[in-house]
Amino acid sequence: MRKVGIAILGLGVVGSGTYKILSSHREFYQKTQNVDLAVESVLELDREKALALGVPAEKIRSNIAEVVADPDVNLVVECIGGVGAAREYVLCALNAGKTVVTSNKELICKYSHELERAAKRQNAGLYFEASCVGGVPVIRTLLDGIESNRVHTVAGIINGTTNYILSEMTENGSSYEDALKRAQELGYAEADPSADVEGFDACYKLSILSSLAFHTKVPYTRIFREGITNISPEDIRHGKELGYVLKLLAIGKQTDAGIEVRVHPAFVRKDHPLASVEGSFNAVYLVGDAVGEVMLYGRGAGDLPTGSAIVSDILYASTHSDIRYSTFKNGEKEEAGVQFAEDFSSAYYLRLTVADKSGVLAKIASALGKTGVSIGELIQCGSKGEVTTVVLVTHETHESNIKSAVEKLNATEIAKVDSVLRVALL
Amino acid sequence: MRKVGIAILGLGVVGSGTYKILSSHREFYQKTQNVDLAVESVLELDREKALALGVPAEKIRSNIAEVVADPDVNLVVECIGGVGAAREYVLCALNAGKTVVTSNKELICKYSHELERAAKRQNAGLYFEASCVGGVPVIRTLLDGIESNRVHTVAGIINGTTNYILSEMTENGSSYEDALKRAQELGYAEADPSADVEGFDACYKLSILSSLAFHTKVPYTRIFREGITNISPEDIRHGKELGYVLKLLAIGKQTDAGIEVRVHPAFVRKDHPLASVEGSFNAVYLVGDAVGEVMLYGRGAGDLPTGSAIVSDILYASTHSDIRYSTFKNGEKEEAGVQFAEDFSSAYYLRLTVADKSGVLAKIASALGKTGVSIGELIQCGSKGEVTTVVLVTHETHESNIKSAVEKLNATEIAKVDSVLRVALL
Repeated sequence: MRKVGIAILGLGVVGSGTYKILSSHREFYQKTQNVDLAVESVLELDREKALALGVPAEKIRSNIAEVVADPDVNLVVECIGGVGAAREYVLCALNAGKTVVTSNKELICKYSHELERAAKRQNAGLYFEASCVGGVPVIRTLLDGIESNRVHTVAGIINGTTNYILSEMTENGSSYEDALKRAQELGYAEADPSADVEGFDACYKLSILSSLAFHTKVPYTRIFREGITNISPEDIRHGKELGYVLKLLAIGKQTDAGIEVRVHPAFVRKDHPLASVEGSFNAVYLVGDAVGEVMLYGRGAGDLPTGSAIVSDILYASTHSDIRYSTFKNGEKEEAGVQFAEDFSSAYYLRLTVADKSGVLAKIASALGKTGVSIGELIQCGSKGEVTTVVLVTHETHESNIKSAVEKLNATEIAKVDSVLRVALL
Repeated sequence: MRKVGIAILGLGVVGSGTYKILSSHREFYQKTQNVDLAVESVLELDREKALALGVPAEKIRSNIAEVVADPDVNLVVECIGGVGAAREYVLCALNAGKTVVTSNKELICKYSHELERAAKRQNAGLYFEASCVGGVPVIRTLLDGIESNRVHTVAGIINGTTNYILSEMTENGSSYEDALKRAQELGYAEADPSADVEGFDACYKLSILSSLAFHTKVPYTRIFREGITNISPEDIRHGKELGYVLKLLAIGKQTDAGIEVRVHPAFVRKDHPLASVEGSFNAVYLVGDAVGEVMLYGRGAGDLPTGSAIVSDILYASTHSDIRYSTFKNGEKEEAGVQFAEDFSSAYYLRLTVADKSGVLAKIASALGKTGVSIGELIQCGSKGEVTTVVLVTHETHESNIKSAVEKLNATEIAKVDSVLRVALL
C-alpha cells in the first residue's frame, strides 16, 4: 500500500477540518483507496490550538524550512490564505518537489502560472478543488466530467456570506445592515466583510472557473464587479412581486462578442434552479454545447465541506501517477486576440419615483424607447401624495443603453430613477 | 500529440450523439486536451443510417471481428444496449486489449466483474459514466470528487421517462395512460415502456451508484422495486395539498441496520431540491459525512447529453495513463456480512374511504396506533353521501408496521384503504 506523508500549513477553519477528516478516515482510505494518508507535520504557531485538535506535540512545526526538509512529507496542504506567506510557502514546497493541495482562491487566481511553472520543474502536482465552492467538485467536473463540451456559460452563487445575507433580507425583510450583523454573529461573515460583500471573493473564484471553462486566462481584473452593500429590502420585495429572487451572481459567458465576466447582484426568475439556493449553500450552473444545462449544488464553505475537497484532491494526487500541468492552458495573461465583451447585455429592473399624473407612464416609455430600451413588465406601487413608485423590468438591452436611459429619465421632470438592478437572462 | 482510434458499436440515439460530438469537436480536443480522437470504424448493420450521419463508407463495419482486428482502433464505444450482443462484443474488445467506454447500465450492473477481469487481464480500461444519469458526471463525482467521504445517502430522480410522466400528471392532472401516451409521442418513452415505468432502469442505475457509494456490491436483485403504473392523479392532487410532489425515487442508504436500497414512487416535500427537478431532467442527491449534501442536476438522457459523458470518458481514458481496476471494490456478489435492511422505514401517505360518522377519525387513529403507526397530518376531503375521503401522512414507521396497519383498517367496517404511498424522509 502506498503511504503518503502529509503536512498541513495553518490550522484555521479549513486546516482543522482537513486534519479532522484525515485523522478519522485513515483506515477508511486504506480499505477503499488502498492508500495510507499519514499527517507527518503541521505548521501552526499557536501550539495550544494544534494540541487541542489532537496533533502530537512532536509533529507541530513553526517554520516552513523544517516542513519541506522532512523526507517523510510528500504532500503539502496550504490553508493559510492570502498571497503573502502562503505564496512563499507554496513555492518553497513545490521547489522541494512536494505536491501541493490548496484552498486558496486568491493565490490560484493571481499566481497560478508561477506555481504551475514551479510544479512542472520539480515534477510535483498542484491541486485546488477546494478554492472554489467548498466541497462541490466543480473543478473536477470542468476538467474531468464535461471536458468534452465547449462550455459557454458558467453562472453561480459562489459566495455563501452574501447568499446568507440576501436570503435573510428576502425571507425576513431585514435591512442590509441587520442581515450582515446576523451573519457576523453566526460566523458566516468576517469582522471586515468587504472581501465577501464587495464581490472580491466571487471574482477570484469566477476568474478560476471561467479560465478553466473557456480554456483561456480570464484575469480577475477584467471582471466587472458590484457588491451588495447598496441593496435595499424594498427592491427585494418589489422583485418578489414580479416573480424574482435577488442573488449575488458570478456570470461567465463565451459569446460571439467575446468573453463576458461579471459579479453583481441580479434578479433570477424564481423557477430557475439557482433561485432555490438558500442561505450558506452554493451552486454552479454550467451550460455545455453537448450536455446542455448542468447544476452542482452544495455547501460552499465550512471546515468539513472544504476539507472534503482538500482530502479528495489528496486522494486523487495519491492514486493517479499522471500530473496535469498547464491546467490553465495559455500564458499568464489573457491571450492576444481574446475579446472581452464589456458592454454586456441583460434585462434590467428599475425603480422610479414619478409624478402621479396621467400620461406619465407613456412619457417614461417614450424616453426609454429613445435609448433603445423597451419595457417588459411594469407595476405601479401606490401613490405617496404627489408622487408614486413605479417598478419595471426591461427587455434585453445593453449596459450602455440603460446608462443613457437612466440619465435621460433623471434629466426630465417626470421621473427620478431610485434604483437599477440587473435581471439575469439564464 | 497522442492519436486515439475509436470504434463506435451501434448508431442508435447514443451512438449517433457520440459520433456527432467526435466529428464536430476533433480540433477542439486537439487544442484543449492535446489529443487527436479519430473515429476509425463504426459497427452498424443499417448502412444507410451510417451514411446519412456522414460516416465514410469505408469505415462502416458489419462484424465485430473486423473492428477489433483493426490495429488503428485503440478504444471501443459500446452503444448497443442489452446484455446479448453488447456483452459478447465488449468482452471481445477487452480481450483484444481495447479500452471500452459504454453507456450500458444493464451490462455494467449485471456483468461488471466479468468485464473488469477481462480488462485487467489485457491492461485495458473500462469506463461507464454514461450508464447513469446521462451527461451528469455522477460516477466521476463518486470516484474522484467526494471520495474522501463515507457517503451514506444516494437519492435520485434517475429515470427521465417516469419523471416526465409524473410531471405531466402533476401539472396537467392527466391520467397515467394519457401522460404515457404523450411521453411516447415525444419519444421520451418506448413503445414497450415497462423497463422505465416498472422501475427496472432505475434499479440498474441505483445498483451501480450504490455499489460505488458504499464500496460493496449492491446486486440489483436486492433492490426493492415498485413502478408508477398504479399512480392516480387523485393522489398526486392530495399530495400537492399537503405540500408534496410525487417522484419516482431511487434511494440508497447506509444505515446502522445495513444497506437499504429501493426504487419506488415517493412524495418529496416541495422545498427539497429534488422536488423542482421537472420533466426529462434528472438529479442525484448525495450526502457524505464531510461534504454534507451535494446535488447534481442535468439531462439524464438524449443523444448529446449521453454522448457528452461518453466522450468525456474517452478523453479521460486518453489523457490518464493509470487505469483503475476493481472500481467495484469487492467480489461479484454482495460481501458476506453486508446487511441489507429490508424492513425499511419511511413516512407514509394513506388515502382512505371512511364512513361519514362522528368518532370515525378517533377509531382510525386508534387502529393505526395499535400497529405502532401515528398520524402526522390528516385532511378530510369532503363527503360523497355516506362515505368521505380522508388523506393522512404518518410519522416515520417501518414498512412491516404499515402493512399490518392497512390490513387492520381494511378488516374494520369503518375504513377502506384505497392507496398507500411512501413519503421520502430526506
